[in-house]
Parts: sequence; structure tokens; C-alpha cells
Amino acid sequence: MSLLTVGTVAFDAIETPFGKIDKITGGSGNYICQSAGHFTNDMQLVSVIGDDFDQDELAYLKSIGTNIEGVQIKNGEKSFFWSGKYHMDLNRRDTLVTDLNVLASFDPILPEKYKNAEFLILGNIDPTLQAKVISQMNTRPKLIAMDTMNFWMEIALEPLKTVLKMVDLLIVNEEEARQLTNEYSLVKAANKIREMGPKFLIIKKGEHGALLFHGNRVFFAPALPLEDVFDPTGAGDTFAGGFMGYLAKTKDLSFENMKRGVIYGSAMASFCVEKFGPQRLKEISREEIEERVQVFIDLVDFDIILQ
Amino acid sequence: MSLLTVGTVAFDAIETPFGKIDKITGGSGNYICQSAGHFTNDMQLVSVIGDDFDQDELAYLKSIGTNIEGVQIKNGEKSFFWSGKYHMDLNRRDTLVTDLNVLASFDPILPEKYKNAEFLILGNIDPTLQAKVISQMNTRPKLIAMDTMNFWMEIALEPLKTVLKMVDLLIVNEEEARQLTNEYSLVKAANKIREMGPKFLIIKKGEHGALLFHGNRVFFAPALPLEDVFDPTGAGDTFAGGFMGYLAKTKDLSFENMKRGVIYGSAMASFCVEKFGPQRLKEISREEIEERVQVFIDLVDFDIILQ
Repeated sequence: MSLLTVGTVAFDAIETPFGKIDKITGGSGNYICQSAGHFTNDMQLVSVIGDDFDQDELAYLKSIGTNIEGVQIKNGEKSFFWSGKYHMDLNRRDTLVTDLNVLASFDPILPEKYKNAEFLILGNIDPTLQAKVISQMNTRPKLIAMDTMNFWMEIALEPLKTVLKMVDLLIVNEEEARQLTNEYSLVKAANKIREMGPKFLIIKKGEHGALLFHGNRVFFAPALPLEDVFDPTGAGDTFAGGFMGYLAKTKDLSFENMKRGVIYGSAMASFCVEKFGPQRLKEISREEIEERVQVFIDLVDFDIILQ
Repeated sequence: MSLLTVGTVAFDAIETPFGKIDKITGGSGNYICQSAGHFTNDMQLVSVIGDDFDQDELAYLKSIGTNIEGVQIKNGEKSFFWSGKYHMDLNRRDTLVTDLNVLASFDPILPEKYKNAEFLILGNIDPTLQAKVISQMNTRPKLIAMDTMNFWMEIALEPLKTVLKMVDLLIVNEEEARQLTNEYSLVKAANKIREMGPKFLIIKKGEHGALLFHGNRVFFAPALPLEDVFDPTGAGDTFAGGFMGYLAKTKDLSFENMKRGVIYGSAMASFCVEKFGPQRLKEISREEIEERVQVFIDLVDFDIILQ
């Protein structure tokens, strides 16, 4: 089934304690598709780029099954550019540059053939645009997922609340869940968020794993204890892409299957951080992914027979 | 099989965002025994108190199967007293008062009948004293576990390194593992710590769970996502007590069984934080513990069939 992604396609400059790269492709839409592409080749992407963008990256996205008719190319303009520097602990980073460029006037328009996609994921962009995308669909997708960030909670809380009512799944990190609800306890935060709209919630905890909430059920997925995290950029979007790609492939929206999706998403994220940008996602094979999932299975496996 | 615990028995004053208590019993040895007592009634405790200590608490320890001949009572002196205040996020606390009192001159002496204990856990005390306890044993215990803290790494690193060579298992938190090894990556830290002596290592991550390392194997145990954490005091010692108590009960030191021990320890810790001090540990039944373990099982349960 088709997976429609709306998100950025961009250039990044990244500095980590282990190295520095002045220009590499990035963007939430790009990471999501490159990750989901390991599970499905029926993808559609809505984004905006300048005429400076890397043609090889676009060709790569097409080669893995992404329809890019919805990627607007603005002649004479520059692609979105982000530059960041990570601290020693890699959980914290300073944004050095955010040049919105083409993103400043982004108006997502869905090509006709995108309007019946069964799975929709809205990367972290202005919630008003996220809502505008949903309103263009001809048929309501089976699953609408969205990401957001603190920035929108501060400057666009009302539009954010509006779009939250329209989606099935919110994917945020711990800090964002706490800021959105003003609750420190993640259990309380999860309850409040689901009162705002989404029936499903994933809270990403970085190196500490992820939590999936639905009804009165909770699933805790570990993160792989890694010897080295080289570059965390895009790990969250890679997680989301793996999760959505797995669901689109398996066409099963039960809680049990979503748990599997969380594990596959976590496995994809664990690859992403091994090299700069989306490089590693281009290299990995199906066998490597299955091997990595086996590591996750072993990591949390225990057997207790209760009396 | 007998479980010998060496640790403090003390008074605490605790302030959390949810309440305040001026005087409640505490101490690592106390928490460990109250937790382990749910699994074994063959316990021995080495500690020191003043003549001000709560007789009911000592009677309680005896009632759950703790031999307290090794608890020295110093007439005319006061028990160890600690006072702390937790921040809103409960992961951070400020120590307000540390009155060593009887602890300043603590010289652990093992009663003859303690010297053949099969399981030994050394709570967080001066590493020189921890080594002194081990050297008094007639037969080498099947498992020697120890806790420590940053303080000893700063003022007694050499004695700490000496005792690390004598034990099988170190139980520390993330920060301590990092400080001891000067490695941020927990995988690298775990490797370095095991080169220092202990074949087994547990790294506690508080609300993010715990990791058990042995050889090239890792086990990741979740922490229960709790709606309210009332008071985290003693949670780490309660974890250790549950873990050791479970091993002493099951007499099985395989990695598989240690994983079960980590789950039981985590379940015990999840009760501990529900009320001030060790109060909750006195109330819970065997059924409640089994129910809680079932929640842990459900929390991480998923099934993926790899192709």
C-alpha cells in the first residue's frame, strides 16, 4: 500500500565529536523515505527544494520506489539548510544555522495520484501545513502519523492542537511530550496527549528506547546499546520511516504489529547513527536488517514462568 | 542459601515534590534486606547503628528472616543520618545533610556463622571496608556483588580498584559507570569495568531501566513507566536486594537466571518508589510481586518471526 511522506529534503552541515561534514543531504522527508524504502517501494513524497539540490539523491529516492512528482523545485532558490554541532554526549546539540530558503514559502500541493495513499506521515513542519495536507486527501488514510517539535508548541500551539485532532499517531521525544502537556510523568503526558486526539502515541527516548501507548497498553522497546554513535542526525525520522514502512508492508494496524514496527524502526535508527547523514541507510541489506532485529530480540528476551 | 548483606541502617529525612518526611528508616543494608526478604528468609546483616535506632525496624528485619547479630549497636552514639531533597524530575537530588555518626568508625566484623554465606552483597560503603568483609569469609561465596558511588572514585580509587578485583558483579548507575571508566558509551564503559575484575555488570538507568552485561551478552530490562514516582530513595538498593534475593532463592547463577533476577529487582524497585522510605516494601504480597512481574513481561513482549 502506498506511503505518502510530507517533509523536508535538505542540506545539512554536521559536527560531532568524531568528525565534521560541511554538506550532506538530509531532511525529514528524505530520511523517512530512505528508511521506509527498505520495506516498501510504493512511496510518494511531498517536499520543496531549490535548484541547487543533489540530483543523485533525487535519483536514489526514485530508485527505491519514491514518486517525487510532489517535490517542488524552485528555480533560482536554495534548498533548506541546517547546521548543527553535537555535544560530547550526543543527546544535546546546538543549532548553528537554520536557513529556511525554499521552506519559508512552502505550500504543499498533493499531486492527484497521491490523494488516495493509505498511509500518511507528516514530518516535522508547520502544523498549519500538516493540516493542509490532510485536507487534500480524497480518502482518509488508514493511518495518519505526525511528528512535531517544541518550536511549534511555542509559536503555533493552536494550529498544532487542530492537527492533533486529525491524526492517529503522534511521534515525539520525551522532552516534547513533556512540553506539550506540562506533565513530567510520561504516563500522565501520554494520557493527556491522547485526549488531544491521537489514539496512538510513540515517545522516543533516544539511547533509552521508545514507548508505544494505545488504550491502556504500553510497549517499551529498547535502544541498542551501541559502542559508538557517530552521528545521531536523522535517527528519529529514520525510526519513523522504518515504522511506517513496516506497517505499509504488512498492512496490519493491530497493536501487536505496531510493536513489531517499533522494533523495525529502532533497528533502522541504530544503523542511521553509524555514519554521517543517510549514508548508512543506502548500504544496508535486508539480511543486515533482519540480523539487527535479532539483536533486539535477544536484548530483551527473558523467560519467567509465574506460579 | 544464605545471603549476607553489608550496608548501612540509618535514618533519612526526605523531601520530594510530593511530600516531606522528617525521619524515616533507611540505609542500603536495610533496603536490601527488606527487598531480598520477599525471596529468602535466610539473611544475615552486618551494619552499625546508634542506640537511637528504631527497635521496631530491627524487629521487622528479624521477622522477615534477617540474622542481625552482625549489626553493631553503639551506646551513646547516633545512627547514620542522611537528608536529601529531590528536584521536580526526581532524577536529581541535593544532599542536605550527611551525619556519619556511628558510620565514621564502622569496622565490619563478621560473626562466625556469617563466614560461609553463599551470597554476599556489599552495599555502598568505603571500599576498604568492603574488601575487609570479603577477607573475613571462610569460604568464597558463590556470588559477590557490590555497589559503590562517585564519592569513592574520587577519594578512594585505589582501594576501589582492589575490591573490584575481588567481586563477581558490580551494580552501579550510568553516571558512575561513566565516571569510573571515563567512557561515555555504556558499552565501552562496560568493557572497561569488566577488565577491572567483575565478570558481571549491572548498569542501572533509573526510569530508563537497567542493563546486564556478561561476556559478549547484554540484557536490557525496562523500567515500568509509572504515573507517579513518590520517593526514589532506596530504589537502587531495593533493586539489588530483589536481584540477590531471587538468586539466593533459585540458586542458579546462569545468565538466563540473572536476567530473571534483574526483572524481579526492577519489580521490587517499582514498588519502593510508591511511598516514602521502605514502607511499601513492608506491605506487598507475593501475589502483588508476581502481578508486577507480569506487567514487565507484557511491557517488552513482542513476537517477530524472521525470515
